Amino acid sequence: MKRSAFDAWMRAQLEAVEAALCVHVRADAPAGLGLAMRYGVLDGGKRLRPLLVLAAAQAVDGHAEAAVRAACAVELIHAYSLIHDDMPCMDNDVLRRGKPTVHVQFGEARAMLAGDAMQALAFEVLTPPPAAAGDVVPDALQARLCRLLARASGVEGMAGGQAIDLASVGKPLTETELLDMHGRKTGALLQNSVLMGAACGQPSAATWDALSEFGAALGVAFQVVDDILDMTQNSEVLGKTAGKDADQNKPTYVSLLGLDGARERAATLHARALSALSASGLGDVHALATLADRILDRDS
Amino acid sequence: MKRSAFDAWMRAQLEAVEAALCVHVRADAPAGLGLAMRYGVLDGGKRLRPLLVLAAAQAVDGHAEAAVRAACAVELIHAYSLIHDDMPCMDNDVLRRGKPTVHVQFGEARAMLAGDAMQALAFEVLTPPPAAAGDVVPDALQARLCRLLARASGVEGMAGGQAIDLASVGKPLTETELLDMHGRKTGALLQNSVLMGAACGQPSAATWDALSEFGAALGVAFQVVDDILDMTQNSEVLGKTAGKDADQNKPTYVSLLGLDGARERAATLHARALSALSASGLGDVHALATLADRILDRDS
Repeated sequence: MKRSAFDAWMRAQLEAVEAALCVHVRADAPAGLGLAMRYGVLDGGKRLRPLLVLAAAQAVDGHAEAAVRAACAVELIHAYSLIHDDMPCMDNDVLRRGKPTVHVQFGEARAMLAGDAMQALAFEVLTPPPAAAGDVVPDALQARLCRLLARASGVEGMAGGQAIDLASVGKPLTETELLDMHGRKTGALLQNSVLMGAACGQPSAATWDALSEFGAALGVAFQVVDDILDMTQNSEVLGKTAGKDADQNKPTYVSLLGLDGARERAATLHARALSALSASGLGDVHALATLADRILDRDS
Repeated sequence: MKRSAFDAWMRAQLEAVEAALCVHVRADAPAGLGLAMRYGVLDGGKRLRPLLVLAAAQAVDGHAEAAVRAACAVELIHAYSLIHDDMPCMDNDVLRRGKPTVHVQFGEARAMLAGDAMQALAFEVLTPPPAAAGDVVPDALQARLCRLLARASGVEGMAGGQAIDLASVGKPLTETELLDMHGRKTGALLQNSVLMGAACGQPSAATWDALSEFGAALGVAFQVVDDILDMTQNSEVLGKTAGKDADQNKPTYVSLLGLDGARERAATLHARALSALSASGLGDVHALATLADRILDRDS
């Protein structure tokens, strides 16, 4: 896929996800809850997780309606985690995606509830009722997508990683411990994005394993690059507070490996991801490969 | 069902739910997260929602493994909502089920994460993988249970009700508004407990509607009784801070209808619930009926 073809594909996917999120996250939810939820998830973010879902679903020729729903669900989980993570009792951050954070804009209580409601909504989006108009998602696929998302979001995944992160401030971590923390905190949901997309089709066990390996390498690579950007970019470019990890004396790949070591590590992981993709036996992996490239090359 | 037979049934159900929760909520989740989750959900509470699930499942001769999983999932959602509701940015409460609240015991950040992880775990419990040992839950039932729970937990249900509650402090509400708030905040999950139990079997549409009506009446009755107890009991009996609603100038059924009016309303709703149960066409509704009686007669 040429650069311009990928960009056109990406624009179409982003429009589809944004349109679907606009429908699912209703503005008229009671007492301003809908407004807080929309503020937290619409019109912002790079939508990397939805793009991974949709690229993987395309690679396995997966169920289109299910893939868009999975893309929205993953983004809802990601966005809710950012809202809760930014709250005063967690990272106490005031800037996100270049805007005041949800609790600054809507108050802490409503921010917490908006996050809670977004997690529930993620599973609601994955389980459309049989009578819904349009292309209904088969029950078995609904169940499987819920299963994947629940595991990636809970103690074995995102929430568990955040708990470790919280407990690690100011503590030296070994590389194994850092890998475990990030593997859960950000890696699980990124890998899961690829797998939810893959689940929308009927990949062989070998293809599934290769995509799982691709997603795992990509998940770590993403975090390594994140740590590099946190050290080298300013807040304006990032759209969030830069240098936060160092300020909070949090362990990062940069503090562990140094800046050059971290860059080397990112390149190695990138190569591992592309190698897994080649081994997947899938024909159309250009979108997945390009997304891997962009994760490495991004400046925010 | 005689009183002693119901008590024996209830003890057996409570043991089954407690044992299942002990397995699902693992103590070894990272960084103390598992301990906070177990503190928040084990060994406490009346388990009214799980009992409603299991009684309804029994009435429709439903899938036993699915029913226990649904009972655990509903209780996990209920328990997570209590943890978040007690936090300083919400009700700021320090006593729950006769113990310090989770954020007092484990800190605010861990309390929020424990709640988040418990919501994810609820959906994980509902979606056991096909390879799990024992009686596997059919995919269609897994999807349906997730669908029901997600809707009851989100903006149309619990989270939406809490948002209205939050926005209503110090404001006069009409009875319609109060009904809408409680219908979402507590009613949706109670009614949903009955319906998740019913979904474990194959009830006719008429039976489903009758059980839905039963659950709706019971949900409101529960809240009316709660408001009465909040006015008439002390904190020691309740195991939570009494008189809180009046102190916070929150609207309640007692402030709206008076104490006698609220008691009359509870009796009317109880009668409506039992009448719906009679109309359900089900043979074995004794456990459901007795639970309805106990909700009315409780002193805490």
